[in-house]
Amino acid sequence: MIRVVATGTFDILHPGHLYYLEESRRLGDELYVIVARDANVKHKPRPILPEDQRLRMVRALKPVDHALLGDLHDMFRPIAEIGPDIITLGFNQHFSEEGLRQKLLDRGLGADVVRISGYPGPLASSSKIIEHILNTRGPTRPAGPAGEGE
Amino acid sequence: MIRVVATGTFDILHPGHLYYLEESRRLGDELYVIVARDANVKHKPRPILPEDQRLRMVRALKPVDHALLGDLHDMFRPIAEIGPDIITLGFNQHFSEEGLRQKLLDRGLGADVVRISGYPGPLASSSKIIEHILNTRGPTRPAGPAGEGE
Repeated sequence: MIRVVATGTFDILHPGHLYYLEESRRLGDELYVIVARDANVKHKPRPILPEDQRLRMVRALKPVDHALLGDLHDMFRPIAEIGPDIITLGFNQHFSEEGLRQKLLDRGLGADVVRISGYPGPLASSSKIIEHILNTRGPTRPAGPAGEGE
Repeated sequence: MIRVVATGTFDILHPGHLYYLEESRRLGDELYVIVARDANVKHKPRPILPEDQRLRMVRALKPVDHALLGDLHDMFRPIAEIGPDIITLGFNQHFSEEGLRQKLLDRGLGADVVRISGYPGPLASSSKIIEHILNTRGPTRPAGPAGEGE
């Protein structure tokens, strides 16, 4: 029974999130997802959606067996409780595999760390979705063709 | 075997969509979801996400057994092919139950039509999500030429 942990903010779900979770799930038999707390998202703008909604939407996705919110003060605590065999990193998550592996070892956690590749295909990422909304719905809508005709 | 059909645009998934799909699924044994084509969304602003992405995300939700894109010219065609016992309407979908039931009968389709109530709880709907993005990310953007390269 191989237990996998994936982590992330999962703000405004899109196929890149789904691909990361599907690929993570394929590495084992059971996928736990730790969803970042609102208060802990500091390396990028605050999430659009509150943590409870982000959690609820992640939990509703087919590859996800269990989803939970992260710990406010100790990111390794839920990982220690779950006891995963593998922890996956998204293609744009800022940890290095080796750095995270070492930090886990420092906490007595022997999980392997696997980097999942980026979504292979055209993608509306969260930031592109936000950019698109600002460009098409905002007050300073640029002149130009309105339809994207894809 | 009770077959249920739900329909919608499902642009930027949120718990209101999920609730509609969960409640629709509970009415039967199998849930088909017809996702609106980009070209057919005319009663509100064009979707932010292209139809293929909206389809992919709806298909990934646990209550959804089957998801497909709508027909470009005849909204009743996929319904006739699926042959549902029940068609559900979201709380804000603009058809009346009786009106839709009659139109289905005109096409020889005897499905019942059930209105699903609105999501009971605080909710970031698509329009609230968009408004929130415009309010929090719009004004703080540095002034400059609009539409940076994608």
